[in-house]
Amino acid sequence: MDIFPEMQRYGYEQVVLCHDRATGLRAIICIHDTTLGPGLGGCRMWTYPNEAAAVADAMRLARAMTYKTAAAGLDLGGAKAVIIGDPRTDKSEGLFRAFGRYVQSLQGRYITAEDVGTTVDDMDIIRLETEFVTGTSAAGSSGDPSPATAFGVWRGMKACAGAVWGEESLQKRTVAIQGVGSVGYHLAEHLADEGARLVVTDIRADKVERVVKEFGARAVDPDVVLDVDCDVFAPCALGGVLNENTIPRLKCKVVAGAANNQLATEDDARRLAERGILWAPDYVINAGGLINVADELLGYDRDRAFRKVGDIYHNVRRVIEIASAEGIPTSQAADRMAERRMELIGKLKHKYIPRGR
Amino acid sequence: MDIFPEMQRYGYEQVVLCHDRATGLRAIICIHDTTLGPGLGGCRMWTYPNEAAAVADAMRLARAMTYKTAAAGLDLGGAKAVIIGDPRTDKSEGLFRAFGRYVQSLQGRYITAEDVGTTVDDMDIIRLETEFVTGTSAAGSSGDPSPATAFGVWRGMKACAGAVWGEESLQKRTVAIQGVGSVGYHLAEHLADEGARLVVTDIRADKVERVVKEFGARAVDPDVVLDVDCDVFAPCALGGVLNENTIPRLKCKVVAGAANNQLATEDDARRLAERGILWAPDYVINAGGLINVADELLGYDRDRAFRKVGDIYHNVRRVIEIASAEGIPTSQAADRMAERRMELIGKLKHKYIPRGR
Repeated sequence: MDIFPEMQRYGYEQVVLCHDRATGLRAIICIHDTTLGPGLGGCRMWTYPNEAAAVADAMRLARAMTYKTAAAGLDLGGAKAVIIGDPRTDKSEGLFRAFGRYVQSLQGRYITAEDVGTTVDDMDIIRLETEFVTGTSAAGSSGDPSPATAFGVWRGMKACAGAVWGEESLQKRTVAIQGVGSVGYHLAEHLADEGARLVVTDIRADKVERVVKEFGARAVDPDVVLDVDCDVFAPCALGGVLNENTIPRLKCKVVAGAANNQLATEDDARRLAERGILWAPDYVINAGGLINVADELLGYDRDRAFRKVGDIYHNVRRVIEIASAEGIPTSQAADRMAERRMELIGKLKHKYIPRGR
Repeated sequence: MDIFPEMQRYGYEQVVLCHDRATGLRAIICIHDTTLGPGLGGCRMWTYPNEAAAVADAMRLARAMTYKTAAAGLDLGGAKAVIIGDPRTDKSEGLFRAFGRYVQSLQGRYITAEDVGTTVDDMDIIRLETEFVTGTSAAGSSGDPSPATAFGVWRGMKACAGAVWGEESLQKRTVAIQGVGSVGYHLAEHLADEGARLVVTDIRADKVERVVKEFGARAVDPDVVLDVDCDVFAPCALGGVLNENTIPRLKCKVVAGAANNQLATEDDARRLAERGILWAPDYVINAGGLINVADELLGYDRDRAFRKVGDIYHNVRRVIEIASAEGIPTSQAADRMAERRMELIGKLKHKYIPRGR
């Protein structure tokens, strides 16, 4: 697979293949766009079947981070790292230290974080070699991102409610939450506090039980949650949950949840719009965890971080405004919002700044 | 083409694909080995037919630089950059500034320099964006590397003479020089000063004329220089000049010259040894230009630089000793000398050094 054609097509800045003889590390760090600031993105560890698959995954995920950080209003760009290997058997101190040294060598153009296949413990090892890591267990760390993500989803859901019903309160609204293990649990708490009616499901019975007990939620089977008569459907589990088979079944007016990659295809944004369902773009509404962890770069302050997470309300509102004004699905409106911010800030940056060191 | 298998096979540290949307820059920076220090290597600009060819060239050249810097006793590793493009039509200030920013982003792990397709003017532009560049026109630059290369070749040739004849002086020895445009010209001057007999050739008549006139050299046709009855043959022009067709024609006892990649294949080292001809490995004896430009990193001092270039005498001697003691061709002895130095220094470096910054 050639890499430059993809870089040219989507404006990637840098793809770094890293190999360490002593530990056998094979990692790819992809920096998509640093217009807004250093590229932040998790380090994924996975048994990629081949090099091309690993490069493609790093590139796809890095670009997604660019849009997510831009839409979140962060002064960060988009990047991602992948380590080729089996997280169950191939981890070692040496491996993550070697990776950390590569991160350090990029001088802060890439800031790493936990992702699929990596843990806080791994970040702690990486931190031995580089300052450009977030989500460690060190003092001043932002800790579990789930409460921040949930808070952001709740705020974004209220923006949707305001747009659809002219009333932001979710009191007496029925919200169906798919997945209440972590983010979904915290979201249920915010909604219960506000007086919403909750319908919940999860593949783990104990997770459902807890939400039923603590917040008086009604439990339904995972298979039928898409058919529930509700005001808001909040996907907080699987990706690809919104597709040509599921969208016709929905009985809600709003889809707003924490899951990543909710749309199976870009066409599904149009399908939702045609059914008159307002979809809060996933990467805009679920950016709370990212905003929270990014606050570490300023010296973590939970109050400040949650204030910024609360601004997801405004970000979702702005997406809805663009979609409405320009007659496009909210997915496309989110991309435009991100791109316009990068374009504007990119112009500001064409000024002389001493190079320093 | 997959990159990791080659990285694993030869211990490459890093391959960086760089793309700049604004200027269209496509560059590859390959860092082979930084055991001894930052990777120094030229920036080549070339119309590569495809991405794989560009990556392969950067990798091959970077690894060669590792051996060259190691054998030269420099505190530098091996690296190389290539820019995909036509040096006659695709150059611009923006292109080289964008490249310079990528060099800067690697924090000194790669130091760039002039190479095929790039010029001092290009290095001057790169210098606007990074401190990690050598061979600019700035004050403190090392200037034309040819005299240093020639001085090193002359010194290395004397080490060969000592090994073959027990007498280092080249007085009255006949030296046939292939190529007297630049390095060969300066080499002729050293040899003439010492009282050697010169036989010279070049495809440019004016270059031959100058050496005949200034140093009393005898001119021969380019086609017959390999057949000249001489003590030393000094290839200072083409690569691949030592091959299965040319080696049987040689009438010398020593081959010692400035050309790069003198052997067509690794087998040709054995062919020379079997004919009883001592070959000074090209990358050891022609490192004078590299040693000279590397001195810029300490603040260029011509006297110090030339003293260090003079040590090529000792490097060539050491190669001959290893070849003799271990019964291997000098080509292999040079590689072993480089590898052993890296191994030793690599061990020294396994000590705690504060990370800094």
